[in-house]
Amino acid sequence: MQVDVISNVNEARSDDFIQKTVIVIDVLRATSTIVTALAHGCSAIVPAETVNQAIQLQQEGDLLGGERFCKKIAGFHYGNSPAEYSTPAIAGKRIILTTTNGTRAIQKSQRAGRLLSGSLLNAEACAKAAFSQKRDVVIVCAGTQDEFCLEDGLCAGLLIVYLMEYGGDKVEANDLGMAMRHAYEAVRDRIEDTLLSCSSGRRLSKIGHRDDILHCSQLNRYDLVPVWRDQSMMRF
Amino acid sequence: MQVDVISNVNEARSDDFIQKTVIVIDVLRATSTIVTALAHGCSAIVPAETVNQAIQLQQEGDLLGGERFCKKIAGFHYGNSPAEYSTPAIAGKRIILTTTNGTRAIQKSQRAGRLLSGSLLNAEACAKAAFSQKRDVVIVCAGTQDEFCLEDGLCAGLLIVYLMEYGGDKVEANDLGMAMRHAYEAVRDRIEDTLLSCSSGRRLSKIGHRDDILHCSQLNRYDLVPVWRDQSMMRF
Repeated sequence: MQVDVISNVNEARSDDFIQKTVIVIDVLRATSTIVTALAHGCSAIVPAETVNQAIQLQQEGDLLGGERFCKKIAGFHYGNSPAEYSTPAIAGKRIILTTTNGTRAIQKSQRAGRLLSGSLLNAEACAKAAFSQKRDVVIVCAGTQDEFCLEDGLCAGLLIVYLMEYGGDKVEANDLGMAMRHAYEAVRDRIEDTLLSCSSGRRLSKIGHRDDILHCSQLNRYDLVPVWRDQSMMRF
Repeated sequence: MQVDVISNVNEARSDDFIQKTVIVIDVLRATSTIVTALAHGCSAIVPAETVNQAIQLQQEGDLLGGERFCKKIAGFHYGNSPAEYSTPAIAGKRIILTTTNGTRAIQKSQRAGRLLSGSLLNAEACAKAAFSQKRDVVIVCAGTQDEFCLEDGLCAGLLIVYLMEYGGDKVEANDLGMAMRHAYEAVRDRIEDTLLSCSSGRRLSKIGHRDDILHCSQLNRYDLVPVWRDQSMMRF
Protein backbone atom coordinates (compact mmCIF):
# COMPACT_ATOMS: atom_id res chain seq x y z
CA MET A 1 0.00 0.00 0.00
CA GLN A 2 1.55 3.28 -1.16
CA VAL A 3 0.76 6.33 0.97
CA ASP A 4 1.50 9.74 -0.54
CA VAL A 5 1.22 12.99 1.38
CA ILE A 6 0.46 16.18 -0.58
CA SER A 7 1.60 19.38 1.10
CA ASN A 8 -1.30 21.70 0.23
CA VAL A 9 -4.49 21.88 -1.81
CA ASN A 10 -2.74 23.71 -4.62
CA GLU A 11 -0.48 20.68 -5.19
CA ALA A 12 -3.43 18.27 -5.45
CA ARG A 13 -3.94 16.85 -8.96
CA SER A 14 -7.33 15.16 -9.09
CA ASP A 15 -6.22 12.76 -11.85
CA ASP A 16 -3.89 11.13 -9.33
CA PHE A 17 -6.81 10.29 -7.03
CA ILE A 18 -8.73 7.88 -9.25
CA GLN A 19 -9.07 4.40 -7.68
CA LYS A 20 -7.36 5.62 -4.51
CA THR A 21 -8.50 6.39 -0.98
CA VAL A 22 -8.06 10.11 -0.41
CA ILE A 23 -8.00 11.57 3.10
CA VAL A 24 -8.46 15.34 3.27
CA ILE A 25 -7.02 17.03 6.37
CA ASP A 26 -7.65 20.56 7.59
CA VAL A 27 -7.01 20.31 11.33
CA LEU A 28 -7.52 24.05 11.93
CA ARG A 29 -10.40 23.85 11.41
CA ALA A 30 -12.64 22.51 8.62
CA THR A 31 -12.17 18.75 9.00
CA SER A 32 -12.18 19.03 12.80
CA THR A 33 -15.46 20.94 12.51
CA ILE A 34 -16.94 18.32 10.14
CA VAL A 35 -16.20 15.39 12.45
CA THR A 36 -17.44 17.35 15.48
CA ALA A 37 -20.70 18.23 13.69
CA LEU A 38 -21.31 14.63 12.59
CA ALA A 39 -20.58 13.48 16.16
CA HIS A 40 -23.35 15.81 17.32
CA GLY A 41 -25.93 14.32 15.01
CA CYS A 42 -25.87 16.51 11.93
CA SER A 43 -26.99 14.36 8.99
CA ALA A 44 -24.57 15.64 6.34
CA ILE A 45 -22.05 18.38 5.60
CA VAL A 46 -22.30 19.79 2.08
CA PRO A 47 -19.12 21.62 1.08
CA ALA A 48 -19.51 24.77 -1.01
CA GLU A 49 -16.74 26.64 -2.74
CA THR A 50 -18.20 30.14 -2.51
CA VAL A 51 -20.60 32.00 -0.24
CA ASN A 52 -23.07 32.32 -3.13
CA GLN A 53 -22.87 28.62 -3.90
CA ALA A 54 -23.57 27.86 -0.23
CA ILE A 55 -26.70 30.02 -0.31
CA GLN A 56 -27.88 28.39 -3.56
CA LEU A 57 -27.40 24.90 -2.13
CA GLN A 58 -29.43 25.68 0.98
CA GLN A 59 -32.79 23.86 1.13
CA GLU A 60 -35.49 24.21 3.75
CA GLY A 61 -34.19 23.20 7.17
CA ASP A 62 -30.52 23.40 6.14
CA LEU A 63 -28.06 25.41 8.20
CA LEU A 64 -25.30 27.60 6.74
CA GLY A 65 -21.77 27.51 8.17
CA GLY A 66 -18.36 28.77 7.25
CA GLU A 67 -15.67 31.40 7.42
CA ARG A 68 -13.69 33.89 5.41
CA PHE A 69 -10.46 35.24 6.95
CA CYS A 70 -11.15 32.93 9.95
CA LYS A 71 -14.39 34.81 10.73
CA LYS A 72 -18.05 33.78 10.50
CA ILE A 73 -19.77 34.86 7.28
CA ALA A 74 -22.48 37.52 7.72
CA GLY A 75 -25.96 35.99 7.75
CA PHE A 76 -24.72 32.44 8.31
CA HIS A 77 -25.89 30.36 11.27
CA TYR A 78 -22.43 29.21 12.29
CA GLY A 79 -18.76 29.99 11.68
CA ASN A 80 -15.99 27.41 11.51
CA SER A 81 -15.50 26.75 15.23
CA PRO A 82 -16.06 23.12 16.20
CA ALA A 83 -17.54 24.43 19.47
CA GLU A 84 -20.46 26.02 17.61
CA TYR A 85 -21.38 22.59 16.23
CA SER A 86 -21.25 20.88 19.63
CA THR A 87 -24.97 21.41 20.12
CA PRO A 88 -28.14 19.31 19.82
CA ALA A 89 -29.54 22.12 17.61
CA ILE A 90 -27.83 20.56 14.58
CA ALA A 91 -29.20 17.04 15.11
CA GLY A 92 -30.75 15.69 11.91
CA LYS A 93 -29.86 18.85 9.96
CA ARG A 94 -27.79 19.28 6.81
CA ILE A 95 -25.09 21.92 7.06
CA ILE A 96 -23.82 23.75 3.99
CA LEU A 97 -20.20 24.62 4.82
CA THR A 98 -17.79 26.92 3.00
CA THR A 99 -14.26 27.53 4.29
CA THR A 100 -11.08 28.90 2.72
CA ASN A 101 -8.99 25.74 2.45
CA GLY A 102 -10.68 22.60 3.76
CA THR A 103 -13.90 22.55 1.76
CA ARG A 104 -11.93 23.44 -1.39
CA ALA A 105 -9.65 20.44 -0.77
CA ILE A 106 -12.71 18.18 -0.41
CA GLN A 107 -14.20 19.46 -3.64
CA LYS A 108 -10.92 18.94 -5.46
CA SER A 109 -10.76 15.33 -4.26
CA GLN A 110 -14.15 14.09 -5.48
CA ARG A 111 -12.62 11.81 -8.11
CA ALA A 112 -11.17 9.59 -5.39
CA GLY A 113 -12.23 5.94 -5.25
CA ARG A 114 -13.13 6.69 -1.63
CA LEU A 115 -12.95 10.13 -0.01
CA LEU A 116 -12.58 10.46 3.76
CA SER A 117 -11.86 13.38 6.00
CA GLY A 118 -9.39 13.24 8.85
CA SER A 119 -8.24 15.28 11.80
CA LEU A 120 -6.47 14.63 15.08
CA LEU A 121 -9.94 14.17 16.60
CA ASN A 122 -10.60 11.01 14.54
CA ALA A 123 -7.14 9.98 13.30
CA GLU A 124 -7.24 6.35 14.44
CA ALA A 125 -10.76 5.70 13.10
CA CYS A 126 -9.81 7.37 9.83
CA ALA A 127 -6.60 5.35 9.41
CA LYS A 128 -8.53 2.13 10.16
CA ALA A 129 -11.19 2.97 7.57
CA ALA A 130 -8.55 3.87 4.98
CA PHE A 131 -6.56 0.68 5.63
CA SER A 132 -9.68 -1.47 5.29
CA GLN A 133 -10.19 -0.13 1.74
CA LYS A 134 -7.03 -1.99 0.57
CA ARG A 135 -6.17 0.70 -1.98
CA ASP A 136 -3.30 3.15 -2.22
CA VAL A 137 -3.85 6.24 -0.08
CA VAL A 138 -3.33 9.93 -0.79
CA ILE A 139 -3.36 12.25 2.21
CA VAL A 140 -4.19 15.79 1.09
CA CYS A 141 -3.08 18.41 3.61
CA ALA A 142 -5.34 21.37 2.89
CA GLY A 143 -2.71 23.85 4.05
CA THR A 144 -3.23 27.58 4.42
CA GLN A 145 -3.24 30.05 1.53
CA ASP A 146 -1.82 27.39 -0.81
CA GLU A 147 1.08 26.66 1.53
CA PHE A 148 1.96 23.76 3.78
CA CYS A 149 0.84 24.11 7.39
CA LEU A 150 2.31 22.24 10.31
CA GLU A 151 -0.88 20.98 11.96
CA ASP A 152 -2.06 19.20 8.79
CA GLY A 153 1.41 17.71 8.28
CA LEU A 154 1.52 16.35 11.84
CA CYS A 155 -1.93 14.78 11.41
CA ALA A 156 -0.71 13.17 8.15
CA GLY A 157 2.30 11.85 10.10
CA LEU A 158 0.01 10.35 12.75
CA LEU A 159 -2.15 8.66 10.09
CA ILE A 160 1.02 7.11 8.66
CA VAL A 161 2.08 5.88 12.11
CA TYR A 162 -1.25 4.03 12.34
CA LEU A 163 -1.18 2.74 8.74
CA MET A 164 2.34 1.35 9.26
CA GLU A 165 1.20 -0.23 12.53
CA TYR A 166 -1.60 -2.04 10.66
CA GLY A 167 0.28 -2.90 7.47
CA GLY A 168 3.91 -3.24 8.52
CA ASP A 169 6.35 -3.42 5.61
CA LYS A 170 3.49 -3.45 3.12
CA VAL A 171 2.89 0.24 3.75
CA GLU A 172 5.31 2.62 2.00
CA ALA A 173 5.12 6.38 2.30
CA ASN A 174 6.54 9.03 -0.02
CA ASP A 175 9.36 11.24 1.31
CA LEU A 176 7.01 13.96 2.54
CA GLY A 177 5.02 11.29 4.37
CA MET A 178 8.18 9.95 6.02
CA ALA A 179 9.22 13.48 7.04
CA MET A 180 5.78 14.06 8.58
CA ARG A 181 5.91 10.74 10.42
CA HIS A 182 9.28 11.75 11.91
CA ALA A 183 7.99 15.23 12.75
CA TYR A 184 4.93 13.77 14.48
CA GLU A 185 7.12 11.41 16.51
CA ALA A 186 9.26 14.32 17.68
CA VAL A 187 6.28 16.30 19.05
CA ARG A 188 3.81 13.56 20.00
CA ASP A 189 3.99 14.50 23.69
CA ARG A 190 3.36 18.20 23.07
CA ILE A 191 0.73 18.36 20.34
CA GLU A 192 -1.32 21.09 22.01
CA ASP A 193 1.69 23.40 22.46
CA THR A 194 2.82 22.72 18.91
CA LEU A 195 -0.59 23.63 17.50
CA LEU A 196 -0.74 26.77 19.64
CA SER A 197 2.65 27.89 18.28
CA CYS A 198 2.28 27.07 14.56
CA SER A 199 1.27 29.88 12.22
CA SER A 200 -2.47 29.01 12.00
CA GLY A 201 -2.54 28.51 15.75
CA ARG A 202 -1.02 31.91 16.46
CA ARG A 203 -3.41 33.58 14.01
CA LEU A 204 -6.49 31.89 15.53
CA SER A 205 -5.35 32.64 19.12
CA LYS A 206 -4.94 36.29 18.27
CA ILE A 207 -8.57 36.61 17.14
CA GLY A 208 -9.99 34.77 20.14
CA HIS A 209 -10.19 31.18 18.92
CA ARG A 210 -7.68 29.62 21.35
CA ASP A 211 -10.36 27.18 22.56
CA ASP A 212 -10.75 25.84 19.02
CA ILE A 213 -7.07 24.91 18.97
CA LEU A 214 -7.38 23.08 22.30
CA HIS A 215 -10.40 21.19 20.96
CA CYS A 216 -8.71 20.31 17.66
CA SER A 217 -5.55 19.08 19.46
CA GLN A 218 -7.36 16.16 21.12
CA LEU A 219 -6.25 12.79 19.79
CA ASN A 220 -8.99 10.31 18.83
CA ARG A 221 -11.82 11.99 20.68
CA TYR A 222 -14.31 10.68 18.11
CA ASP A 223 -14.55 7.15 16.73
CA LEU A 224 -16.16 8.39 13.55
CA VAL A 225 -15.10 8.84 9.92
CA PRO A 226 -16.71 11.33 7.55
CA VAL A 227 -17.02 9.79 4.07
CA TRP A 228 -18.07 11.37 0.76
CA ARG A 229 -21.53 10.23 -0.42
CA ASP A 230 -24.28 12.06 -2.35
CA GLN A 231 -22.18 15.21 -2.71
CA SER A 232 -21.69 15.51 1.02
CA MET A 233 -19.72 14.26 3.99
CA MET A 234 -21.65 11.70 6.07
CA ARG A 235 -20.82 9.10 8.72
CA PHE A 236 -18.89 6.18 7.16
CA MET B 1 15.29 36.71 11.29
CA GLN B 2 12.66 34.87 9.26
CA VAL B 3 13.70 31.48 7.85
CA ASP B 4 11.49 29.99 5.14
CA VAL B 5 11.97 26.49 3.77
CA ILE B 6 10.82 25.79 0.18
CA SER B 7 10.00 22.16 -0.53
CA ASN B 8 11.39 21.83 -4.09
CA VAL B 9 12.91 23.87 -6.90
CA ASN B 10 9.56 24.10 -8.67
CA GLU B 11 8.12 26.05 -5.73
CA ALA B 12 10.96 28.59 -5.75
CA ARG B 13 9.89 32.08 -6.83
CA SER B 14 12.99 34.13 -7.52
CA ASP B 15 11.22 37.42 -6.72
CA ASP B 16 11.00 36.28 -3.12
CA PHE B 17 14.79 35.98 -2.86
CA ILE B 18 15.78 39.61 -3.38
CA GLN B 19 17.70 41.02 -0.38
CA LYS B 20 17.66 37.62 1.31
CA THR B 21 20.25 34.96 1.98
CA VAL B 22 19.32 31.89 -0.02
CA ILE B 23 20.76 28.46 0.81
CA VAL B 24 20.33 25.86 -1.92
CA ILE B 25 20.36 22.23 -0.73
CA ASP B 26 20.70 19.10 -2.84
CA VAL B 27 22.17 16.58 -0.43
CA LEU B 28 22.04 13.68 -2.94
CA ARG B 29 24.17 14.87 -4.59
CA ALA B 30 24.87 18.23 -6.25
CA THR B 31 25.57 20.47 -3.25
CA SER B 32 27.50 17.67 -1.48
CA THR B 33 29.58 17.34 -4.65
CA ILE B 34 30.16 21.11 -4.85
CA VAL B 35 31.46 21.39 -1.29
CA THR B 36 33.60 18.26 -1.71
CA ALA B 37 35.12 19.63 -4.94
CA LEU B 38 35.91 23.02 -3.36
CA ALA B 39 37.45 21.22 -0.38
CA HIS B 40 39.77 19.46 -2.83
CA GLY B 41 41.01 22.69 -4.33
CA CYS B 42 38.84 23.24 -7.37
CA SER B 43 38.76 27.01 -8.01
CA ALA B 44 35.07 27.36 -8.95
CA ILE B 45 31.98 25.39 -9.90
CA VAL B 46 30.01 26.87 -12.78
CA PRO B 47 26.45 25.53 -12.89
CA ALA B 48 24.94 24.88 -16.31
CA GLU B 49 21.31 24.11 -17.03
CA THR B 50 21.80 21.88 -20.06
CA VAL B 51 24.53 19.61 -21.41
CA ASN B 52 24.99 21.93 -24.40
CA GLN B 53 25.28 24.97 -22.17
CA ALA B 54 27.96 23.17 -20.14
CA ILE B 55 29.98 22.47 -23.28
CA GLN B 56 29.61 26.09 -24.45
CA LEU B 57 30.79 27.42 -21.08
CA GLN B 58 33.90 25.24 -21.09
CA GLN B 59 37.15 27.17 -21.53
CA GLU B 60 40.65 25.80 -21.83
CA GLY B 61 41.61 23.85 -18.72
CA ASP B 62 38.00 23.54 -17.46
CA LEU B 63 36.61 20.17 -16.53
CA LEU B 64 33.06 18.99 -17.29
CA GLY B 65 30.96 17.24 -14.66
CA GLY B 66 27.36 16.19 -14.21
CA GLU B 67 24.63 13.63 -14.51
CA ARG B 68 21.36 12.79 -16.19
CA PHE B 69 19.20 10.04 -14.67
CA CYS B 70 21.89 9.76 -11.91
CA LYS B 71 24.52 8.69 -14.47
CA LYS B 72 27.65 10.43 -15.81
CA ILE B 73 27.10 12.30 -19.10
CA ALA B 74 28.92 10.78 -22.09
CA GLY B 75 32.16 12.64 -22.85
CA PHE B 76 32.26 14.45 -19.50
CA HIS B 77 35.26 14.14 -17.17
CA TYR B 78 33.22 13.42 -14.06
CA GLY B 79 29.72 12.40 -13.01
CA ASN B 80 27.96 13.67 -9.88
CA SER B 81 29.66 11.45 -7.26
CA PRO B 82 31.47 13.45 -4.58
CA ALA B 83 34.09 10.66 -4.57
CA GLU B 84 35.14 11.52 -8.13
CA TYR B 85 35.98 15.04 -6.99
CA SER B 86 38.05 13.86 -4.00
CA THR B 87 41.24 14.05 -6.06
CA PRO B 88 44.16 16.46 -6.45
CA ALA B 89 43.50 16.35 -10.22
CA ILE B 90 40.87 19.10 -9.82
CA ALA B 91 43.10 21.50 -7.85
CA GLY B 92 43.05 24.97 -9.37
CA LYS B 93 40.55 23.94 -12.06
CA ARG B 94 37.10 25.30 -12.89
CA ILE B 95 34.39 22.66 -13.15
CA ILE B 96 31.32 23.19 -15.30
CA LEU B 97 28.57 21.17 -13.59
CA THR B 98 25.11 20.25 -14.83
CA THR B 99 22.75 18.11 -12.74
CA THR B 100 19.02 17.47 -12.81
CA ASN B 101 17.89 19.35 -9.71
CA GLY B 102 20.70 21.01 -7.79
CA THR B 103 22.30 23.19 -10.44
CA ARG B 104 18.83 24.25 -11.63
CA ALA B 105 18.00 25.35 -8.09
CA ILE B 106 21.22 27.40 -7.95
CA GLN B 107 20.47 29.07 -11.26
CA LYS B 108 16.94 29.88 -10.13
CA SER B 109 18.30 31.55 -6.97
CA GLN B 110 20.72 34.02 -8.51
CA ARG B 111 18.62 37.04 -7.52
CA ALA B 112 19.38 36.38 -3.85
CA GLY B 113 21.17 39.06 -1.85
CA ARG B 114 23.64 36.29 -0.95
CA LEU B 115 23.52 32.76 -2.38
CA LEU B 116 25.11 29.87 -0.47
CA SER B 117 25.01 26.15 -0.95
CA GLY B 118 24.49 23.73 1.90
CA SER B 119 24.63 20.02 2.60
CA LEU B 120 25.04 17.82 5.64
CA LEU B 121 28.79 17.93 4.93
CA ASN B 122 28.98 21.68 5.70
CA ALA B 123 25.74 22.41 7.57
CA GLU B 124 27.28 24.17 10.57
CA ALA B 125 29.62 26.36 8.50
CA CYS B 126 26.74 27.21 6.18
CA ALA B 127 24.37 28.13 9.02
CA LYS B 128 27.09 30.32 10.59
CA ALA B 129 27.71 32.12 7.31
CA ALA B 130 23.99 32.65 6.75
CA PHE B 131 23.45 33.93 10.29
CA SER B 132 26.34 36.39 9.94
CA GLN B 133 24.59 38.01 6.95
CA LYS B 134 21.84 39.34 9.27
CA ARG B 135 19.17 39.02 6.59
CA ASP B 136 16.11 36.81 6.28
CA VAL B 137 16.95 33.35 5.00
CA VAL B 138 15.28 31.16 2.37
CA ILE B 139 16.33 27.51 2.30
CA VAL B 140 15.59 26.02 -1.12
CA CYS B 141 15.38 22.23 -1.04
CA ALA B 142 16.16 21.22 -4.61
CA GLY B 143 14.02 18.08 -4.33
CA THR B 144 13.76 15.38 -6.95
CA GLN B 145 11.68 15.64 -10.12
CA ASP B 146 9.93 18.74 -8.76
CA GLU B 147 8.94 16.95 -5.56
CA PHE B 148 10.08 17.22 -1.96
CA CYS B 149 12.79 14.78 -0.96
CA LEU B 150 13.56 13.74 2.59
CA GLU B 151 17.34 14.24 2.63
CA ASP B 152 17.06 17.90 1.61
CA GLY B 153 14.30 18.46 4.16
CA LEU B 154 16.39 16.96 6.98
CA CYS B 155 19.35 19.16 6.03
CA ALA B 156 17.03 22.19 6.11
CA GLY B 157 15.91 21.07 9.57
CA LEU B 158 19.51 20.85 10.76
CA LEU B 159 20.29 24.35 9.42
CA ILE B 160 17.30 25.64 11.40
CA VAL B 161 18.52 23.88 14.55
CA TYR B 162 21.82 25.81 14.19
CA LEU B 163 20.19 29.13 13.27
CA MET B 164 17.89 28.89 16.32
CA GLU B 165 20.92 28.03 18.49
CA TYR B 166 22.65 31.22 17.30
CA GLY B 167 19.65 33.55 17.23
CA GLY B 168 17.30 32.18 19.90
CA ASP B 169 13.83 33.74 19.81
CA LYS B 170 14.89 36.13 17.07
CA VAL B 171 14.84 33.30 14.54
CA GLU B 172 11.37 32.29 13.29
CA ALA B 173 10.81 29.51 10.77
CA ASN B 174 7.81 28.92 8.53
CA ASP B 175 5.67 25.83 9.16
CA LEU B 176 7.59 23.66 6.71
CA GLY B 177 10.81 24.71 8.43
CA MET B 178 9.39 23.78 11.84
CA ALA B 179 8.24 20.41 10.50
CA MET B 180 11.73 19.75 9.10
CA ARG B 181 13.37 20.77 12.36
CA HIS B 182 11.15 18.28 14.21
CA ALA B 183 11.82 15.58 11.59
CA TYR B 184 15.58 16.14 11.88
CA GLU B 185 15.39 15.89 15.67
CA ALA B 186 13.57 12.56 15.40
CA VAL B 187 16.26 10.96 13.20
CA ARG B 188 19.42 12.79 14.26
CA ASP B 189 20.97 9.58 15.60
CA ARG B 190 20.29 7.59 12.42
CA ILE B 191 21.01 9.96 9.54
CA GLU B 192 22.90 7.40 7.47
CA ASP B 193 20.13 4.79 7.68
CA THR B 194 17.52 7.43 6.93
CA LEU B 195 19.37 8.56 3.80
CA LEU B 196 19.86 4.96 2.67
CA SER B 197 16.11 4.31 2.98
CA CYS B 198 14.66 7.50 1.45
CA SER B 199 13.61 7.39 -2.18
CA SER B 200 16.75 9.02 -3.66
CA GLY B 201 18.92 6.83 -1.44
CA ARG B 202 17.21 3.64 -2.59
CA ARG B 203 17.51 4.70 -6.24
CA LEU B 204 21.23 5.55 -5.91
CA SER B 205 21.99 2.34 -3.99
CA LYS B 206 20.34 0.30 -6.72
CA ILE B 207 22.66 1.70 -9.39
CA GLY B 208 25.84 1.26 -7.35
CA HIS B 209 26.18 4.64 -5.61
CA ARG B 210 25.78 3.47 -2.00
CA ASP B 211 29.17 4.96 -1.10
CA ASP B 212 27.97 8.38 -2.22
CA ILE B 213 25.15 8.19 0.31
CA LEU B 214 27.55 7.26 3.11
CA HIS B 215 29.79 10.20 2.13
CA CYS B 216 26.89 12.66 1.93
CA SER B 217 25.53 11.52 5.33
CA GLN B 218 28.57 12.83 7.23
CA LEU B 219 27.76 15.82 9.43
CA ASN B 220 30.07 18.83 9.20
CA ARG B 221 32.97 17.09 7.52
CA TYR B 222 33.97 20.34 5.80
CA ASP B 223 34.29 23.79 7.39
CA LEU B 224 33.64 25.49 4.07
CA VAL B 225 30.77 27.40 2.46
CA PRO B 226 30.27 27.66 -1.29
CA VAL B 227 29.07 31.17 -2.18
CA TRP B 228 27.84 32.59 -5.51
CA ARG B 229 30.30 35.01 -7.13
CA ASP B 230 31.12 35.70 -10.81
CA GLN B 231 28.48 33.27 -12.06
CA SER B 232 29.97 30.40 -10.10
CA MET B 233 30.19 28.79 -6.69
CA MET B 234 33.45 29.57 -4.87
CA ARG B 235 34.77 29.36 -1.34
CA PHE B 236 33.08 31.99 0.89
